[in-house]
Amino acid sequence: MRKLPLLLSALTLAGVSTLSAAQSWEALPETAPSPANNPTTTEKVELGKILYFDPRLSSTGTVSCNSCHNVMLGGEDNRSFSMGVHGQLGGRSAPTVWNSAFNSVQFWDGRADSLEAQAAGPVTAGVEMGMKSWDDVVIRLEAIPGYADLFKSAFGEKAVISKDNATKAIAAYERTLITPNSPYDRYAKGDESAMTAQQIKGLNTFSQTGCTSCHSGAAFNGPTMPAGSGFYVNFPTFTDSAYVKKYNLLKDKGRGEVTKNKADDHKYKIPVLRNVALTAPYFHNGSVKTLDEAVRVMAKVQLNKTLNDQEVADIVAFLGSLTGEFPEQTMPRLPSYSGKTITP
Amino acid sequence: MRKLPLLLSALTLAGVSTLSAAQSWEALPETAPSPANNPTTTEKVELGKILYFDPRLSSTGTVSCNSCHNVMLGGEDNRSFSMGVHGQLGGRSAPTVWNSAFNSVQFWDGRADSLEAQAAGPVTAGVEMGMKSWDDVVIRLEAIPGYADLFKSAFGEKAVISKDNATKAIAAYERTLITPNSPYDRYAKGDESAMTAQQIKGLNTFSQTGCTSCHSGAAFNGPTMPAGSGFYVNFPTFTDSAYVKKYNLLKDKGRGEVTKNKADDHKYKIPVLRNVALTAPYFHNGSVKTLDEAVRVMAKVQLNKTLNDQEVADIVAFLGSLTGEFPEQTMPRLPSYSGKTITP
Repeated sequence: MRKLPLLLSALTLAGVSTLSAAQSWEALPETAPSPANNPTTTEKVELGKILYFDPRLSSTGTVSCNSCHNVMLGGEDNRSFSMGVHGQLGGRSAPTVWNSAFNSVQFWDGRADSLEAQAAGPVTAGVEMGMKSWDDVVIRLEAIPGYADLFKSAFGEKAVISKDNATKAIAAYERTLITPNSPYDRYAKGDESAMTAQQIKGLNTFSQTGCTSCHSGAAFNGPTMPAGSGFYVNFPTFTDSAYVKKYNLLKDKGRGEVTKNKADDHKYKIPVLRNVALTAPYFHNGSVKTLDEAVRVMAKVQLNKTLNDQEVADIVAFLGSLTGEFPEQTMPRLPSYSGKTITP
Repeated sequence: MRKLPLLLSALTLAGVSTLSAAQSWEALPETAPSPANNPTTTEKVELGKILYFDPRLSSTGTVSCNSCHNVMLGGEDNRSFSMGVHGQLGGRSAPTVWNSAFNSVQFWDGRADSLEAQAAGPVTAGVEMGMKSWDDVVIRLEAIPGYADLFKSAFGEKAVISKDNATKAIAAYERTLITPNSPYDRYAKGDESAMTAQQIKGLNTFSQTGCTSCHSGAAFNGPTMPAGSGFYVNFPTFTDSAYVKKYNLLKDKGRGEVTKNKADDHKYKIPVLRNVALTAPYFHNGSVKTLDEAVRVMAKVQLNKTLNDQEVADIVAFLGSLTGEFPEQTMPRLPSYSGKTITP
């Protein structure tokens, strides 16, 4: 990947006189690497897309992966807490599936070390898709004749319908969900006109404020880590801010809920900022409804800085430049269980 | 539309020696007529598709038209009763949206005289999409910047976001949801090899049993009626069958619930049989889980006939020949309310 310094000429044109400390800015890769045990293939992606959209992977037949991670929107559901089977609420805000391929760990607390591991979770979570077990999921998929051939096509003639293959296929599909060519990407690649003057100003404010100390890299989700290793940060760091109480930021123990290690309490993986303008409400608990307030809160509770309205507006403008191009997709056709129903 | 008599040669080849009474069989049209006040246009269809998939038309932001009328499946949700906002259950089984353009009235009880009128209903039904009013829906759509341009593009530069335009667009999209070229259609057009011997036998059994007295026409949903006029039939007709109690067929008053006229009690419009193999469970209350049992029950409670297993299997085979080709569709991109959330 090309790394380019900020374009001084553009900044000068825009009336910005200072350039922030040496900083390289990366464009988003157009493809995501796949793990050695799950190379991306067309057939796997197609099966994964079908599974991703199939609500019969939920106990009620009403909730698919796409219900909470809606690829027709910003890759999530614009809700504070997602709504699973029987209208039950989850405990955290659904992260976006777009560009999740660039996370080294998944979930807010990093408890899944791969997209494959992540895909296994919600299906059997009681308040999400509510299946009793993956054995039950496999039985259900086996009862839908078309799936057997789709699994064989994706994994070979001897392949069976299994949790392992299903989650591999879903992960393979998710690795195709990348949004390149945002204004920021075009700017980073040398197109000085791709970002507005305010967006460029906001980029500098973002950097100078210190946001890039965590939100670095092509997806702005932190330093590059080996797949499966997480980079966790305390949130909130400055706990005496009034925002902490207002937005109930200390209720959730984050990573600590997983490790049961007190040192991990309130630590989270750094979320992707790509398309962040599309993914309101914000934070793990979806407590902040607007992006400008999210910027204000982050500066205060993470960096102990109080931004003025202009700085907030500039950073919001910059974040808007991270909205990329969403690849056109065909709708999958879900195989049918001919003449019978398998959901309640 | 071409109407062709059954192909005697094919029947003879298949070992079927008798041809049912003179009967013409119609292939499904590849396009649906549109009403004078809502001509189908590409822009309207595109807007309609976006609205159809937008869960923000529901109070919780979790239920779209597609949730219960899933076009990636057989056009419904394979549930007895659909599940709306907060996991609430509706009172009837969702009819398929595929080929609904060929219904002269909509809903099981025919209470909507057009697809436009139908589209207005579920959005504000408490147990379905749960919006308080269409005024609230319009306010919500107005808050999503992209919609204004989409409405202008579909309805002209002076067009506003309104219930009238939204339901027109959804109806225009639904008129494109047609599944031509089923084995039956190809057979009706002269391809003698398109249906299997058993399917042809089943077609004759279907006709000879009397099913065609109601299930006639290209969509097998009854005689051609002017748009807005319904053709209603008692269901069940023979109320002393044990099936009536077993499947609770008299609980719902059908058309009578709408007109409050006792003479309309337990009357229903005749549902489309196209793709019926994909739309289990069956009947207005989704009480019958399999197509073979649905065939058995229909023959008994409507025609007072007891079919043997071979006859049932043949009719089921014939009904399988009504599964058509589903047009490939691209996924819509839903416009975003940049940086803010408009759902709870």
